[in-house]
Amino acid sequence: MSISISHLGPTGTYAEAAALAYANWLSLEKGQKCFLCPYPSIAQTLQATADGQAHLAVVPVENSLEGSVSMTLDTLWRLDTLQIQQALVLPICHAMLSSADNLEAIRTVYSHPQALAQCQGWLDKFMPSVQQVSMNSTTEALKYLEEDGTAGAIASGRAAEIYNLPILACPINDFSSNYTRFWVLSLQPSPGGSHTSLAFSAPANLPGALVKPLQLFAKRNINLSRIESRPTKRSLGEYLFFIDIEADATQPFVKAALDELITYSETLKIFGSYSVLPIE
Amino acid sequence: MSISISHLGPTGTYAEAAALAYANWLSLEKGQKCFLCPYPSIAQTLQATADGQAHLAVVPVENSLEGSVSMTLDTLWRLDTLQIQQALVLPICHAMLSSADNLEAIRTVYSHPQALAQCQGWLDKFMPSVQQVSMNSTTEALKYLEEDGTAGAIASGRAAEIYNLPILACPINDFSSNYTRFWVLSLQPSPGGSHTSLAFSAPANLPGALVKPLQLFAKRNINLSRIESRPTKRSLGEYLFFIDIEADATQPFVKAALDELITYSETLKIFGSYSVLPIE
Repeated sequence: MSISISHLGPTGTYAEAAALAYANWLSLEKGQKCFLCPYPSIAQTLQATADGQAHLAVVPVENSLEGSVSMTLDTLWRLDTLQIQQALVLPICHAMLSSADNLEAIRTVYSHPQALAQCQGWLDKFMPSVQQVSMNSTTEALKYLEEDGTAGAIASGRAAEIYNLPILACPINDFSSNYTRFWVLSLQPSPGGSHTSLAFSAPANLPGALVKPLQLFAKRNINLSRIESRPTKRSLGEYLFFIDIEADATQPFVKAALDELITYSETLKIFGSYSVLPIE
Repeated sequence: MSISISHLGPTGTYAEAAALAYANWLSLEKGQKCFLCPYPSIAQTLQATADGQAHLAVVPVENSLEGSVSMTLDTLWRLDTLQIQQALVLPICHAMLSSADNLEAIRTVYSHPQALAQCQGWLDKFMPSVQQVSMNSTTEALKYLEEDGTAGAIASGRAAEIYNLPILACPINDFSSNYTRFWVLSLQPSPGGSHTSLAFSAPANLPGALVKPLQLFAKRNINLSRIESRPTKRSLGEYLFFIDIEADATQPFVKAALDELITYSETLKIFGSYSVLPIE
């Protein structure tokens, strides 16, 4: 049986590159064949897998320059059915694509807001007067570039190949060390592994509300690799906390920590334990 | 002497409404006259005040639905000279502005990414097939709406009045409780007040790195009203933490806490102590 993988499209996005990398790994390691299903937003990518329209979803979680992808965190909290199967870390190298002869001829630059933000210093320096227009993905605007000689787009070198578009400058990210972490999710239970991700809402105001959850991990020598707050959307000053720990939730001392965490949480959601797949 | 206030423009933005509210308060309470200076981005708004081109900057910090405004936090950390004079909380009520006859005639909706995100559920329900285009502000696209009958924009009722544009639907935010917190900043020392904001970078990996800073506030009964992580931009998994505490940094026990925090921080930046101005 072929496995369907939903991701943010259209073709040429970094999310597609991550989905392809995971599909290659599944093919090599497990002999499984995959096909990709692009969706127009991260929310729809996750919803499709939650609804059973795809077996797996591959979505970006955080970038080393721009931080968390709020849409992914908020949608996962809302859906409450998807479990993490695997994490992948992909290097990100942005290029300026355009059919213009040079940078000076470009009036408008299109890209995903994360990509625009990751290249903000370069844009301010080399294209200070262009209009920057945010799109749902890095590749959504590429189809217009052939007709419009005053348009540019920030996307990957791979997207330039796929759409047969010239690269005017590369790399253009402000910091050369640019990585994005992706999660592979499905309705299946997570397989276990070195990392566990969870989120909880704490009672309003934080004097001890956050100290106690962090202490219960610290006293068991469980390392936190990430903490991120998101608004509950109920009232200004009320938050959810998304936490990644470097431990497997199936181990008894980790399970004990999570049981204790329930007593300090209004709502606790565990997104699963999984390993991290390195990608060259 | 008139006081100049920089804010995200063009005219009609929520940031301008916050700047006007603060200017009114300055006029009523202190008899000071103000004039507003719109800038095309939050980074440029803050830079203008850091460079002495404006006396004060008014910028959004966080919204009750969409969370922190990364551009504000990242720019404040980078500039390291501006101090918070005051916080303001403004209710946010979004409207769909268009010269189209009805919602069905609209093909493209323009707005700031935060405003698009705050109305995502409404857009999915009532305008599922429109293209959503992110702009630098809620009002940047309004000038095109008069000519283009297939364009809509998410902005405030006040923007509809200023640009003389019809409102097709209001309110359209997904949750009725929608507030944005703004900070007023300048090169002057902060005046002191009920809240103190700071940020610090901790050594990589967080077992105790975050527990100890939180404990030192908890043991002094200093309430944390907010914690937010941002990437250091050096390497995936390295973070800055932005913290708001409900205490005045000039009080000795708060000063002692901050002195202790220095020992756990790689870099500690204190953005000042200030009060919160309620706005009806």
